[in-house]
Amino acid sequence: MSGFVRIVEVGPRDGLQNEPQVLPVEARIDLVRQLADAGLRHIEAGAFVSPRWVPQMAGSDEVLRRLGRRPGVRFSALVPNLVGLEAALAAGCEEVAVFAAASEAFSQRNINCSIDDSLLRFEPVLALARERGVRVRGYVSCVLDCPYSGPVAPQQAGEVAERLHALGCYEISLGDTLGKGTPDATARLLEHCAQRLPLTALAGHFHDTFGMALANLLAALQAGVRTFDSSLAGLGGCPYSPGAGGNVATEDVLHLLHGMGYATGIDLPAVARLGTLISRRLGRPNASRAGRALVAAERQPRTCATAP
Amino acid sequence: MSGFVRIVEVGPRDGLQNEPQVLPVEARIDLVRQLADAGLRHIEAGAFVSPRWVPQMAGSDEVLRRLGRRPGVRFSALVPNLVGLEAALAAGCEEVAVFAAASEAFSQRNINCSIDDSLLRFEPVLALARERGVRVRGYVSCVLDCPYSGPVAPQQAGEVAERLHALGCYEISLGDTLGKGTPDATARLLEHCAQRLPLTALAGHFHDTFGMALANLLAALQAGVRTFDSSLAGLGGCPYSPGAGGNVATEDVLHLLHGMGYATGIDLPAVARLGTLISRRLGRPNASRAGRALVAAERQPRTCATAP
Repeated sequence: MSGFVRIVEVGPRDGLQNEPQVLPVEARIDLVRQLADAGLRHIEAGAFVSPRWVPQMAGSDEVLRRLGRRPGVRFSALVPNLVGLEAALAAGCEEVAVFAAASEAFSQRNINCSIDDSLLRFEPVLALARERGVRVRGYVSCVLDCPYSGPVAPQQAGEVAERLHALGCYEISLGDTLGKGTPDATARLLEHCAQRLPLTALAGHFHDTFGMALANLLAALQAGVRTFDSSLAGLGGCPYSPGAGGNVATEDVLHLLHGMGYATGIDLPAVARLGTLISRRLGRPNASRAGRALVAAERQPRTCATAP
Repeated sequence: MSGFVRIVEVGPRDGLQNEPQVLPVEARIDLVRQLADAGLRHIEAGAFVSPRWVPQMAGSDEVLRRLGRRPGVRFSALVPNLVGLEAALAAGCEEVAVFAAASEAFSQRNINCSIDDSLLRFEPVLALARERGVRVRGYVSCVLDCPYSGPVAPQQAGEVAERLHALGCYEISLGDTLGKGTPDATARLLEHCAQRLPLTALAGHFHDTFGMALANLLAALQAGVRTFDSSLAGLGGCPYSPGAGGNVATEDVLHLLHGMGYATGIDLPAVARLGTLISRRLGRPNASRAGRALVAAERQPRTCATAP
């Protein structure tokens, strides 16, 4: 098993698109550049979706165009369909991401079509991307639980993952969208998926709504997964609003991985400082516990603790 | 391995003693009784320490006396020395807890004596407790990291745990006081301790300062530990103050355990409601993510999620 873990930073997209405050294009470009400076090598920087539905992602074409290419770093963007892909290509994107759901009920309500139809819709997207030499990542949401139909069987999530892979997605990110799943369910899902896909084509995407994200990530790590999505400062859900749990915080993931001896190539204290800045800028508390603890420790090097 | 996990609720003691607001005796008694009603079978309800140093625990004699005995439930209290034990006995306590540190530097600075001296001091405490038929639990703090001397070797923590056990403590609670430790260190510690002590005499006590608590708890569970300390609503450290991470939240632990099929005998929704009430009463945010999510779900049964 590899001692290197790849982090896909989704804060500037999955994170910001779920924040109530809209960050202007300039600030988003700065954020992505600073993340790259801190060692993040894959950053999802925007989404080519309607600004009417997702105002937080308005101007993604400008964000991606101005970010341009940077050696050793990948900037990617979410595209819901062929129109989105065309806009992404026009902005010079070298990688895009598509998304499907593991649950039929969630697909119907959230993507407004069946799972089959959503995959069918991605065929021309994948074909055009291949033609233009653009890599495509696939997201599968609700891999453990669906808000409408309850627990999701590993077979169901595994099938959608396999189909996205067969369509040409180089990597499938398995998302516990509700954040309700537990480590045993995570382990069962990965055991099943590993029979259908190479482990190296799988990524874990955990939300911390019920506080399970790092325990689930640990289970995925033990199952051999070496790619995880995470979000600076836990952007994408205010930890203080009931039920609005965000993505697992990049800082917490890095503290876990580095503490366990895994290499990521990422400068954790630098990310922690960025997490503080962006939280302040958005007027929200920092949802990363490691981030808060690290920044506090920098201010006051020796923590005081009450025994025991 | 047993499918039953024992939870030691430390909110009313380890939790409240680290909250800035002091809760009066009446409210503490109510809280403990409600926790017992929710199915908690072991609740640390007070500490016989100087109210000058720990005003939050003032009146612990009244709390313990009025709680009295309840069939199938244990109310315990922390005692730092013989004077504390005598007060606990006078209040009718059936179980007490003593504490030592795994780190020499922490013992010196926090308990004001060496580890040896602290254990020596407990000899008459354990002897008197045995004579009076009172069970004694032992805490070892800083089992993974010390704020003054850095990482703590498993041998060091294991030795202190073994000595407390040899003195007569029926159970040793291993505390990651700083909350900085990671699952591999937790696993190594337990592997070592299991060579010195029966696994059934060990408990895990994790703080969430760096967000590691549940991942560490999972590692301990995988190592065979079946007793964990936790604190209602994560009392004992405001999650929004930098660096002030509290105990792992009972609600989060229960969500993990129940989701993995372990039985605890505890009513999670009832605990979640208590966590909301106590957080409101203390004027602090609820630090339990599962608690917040459950209470939100009760208000609005179907969560909305954005894909992916």
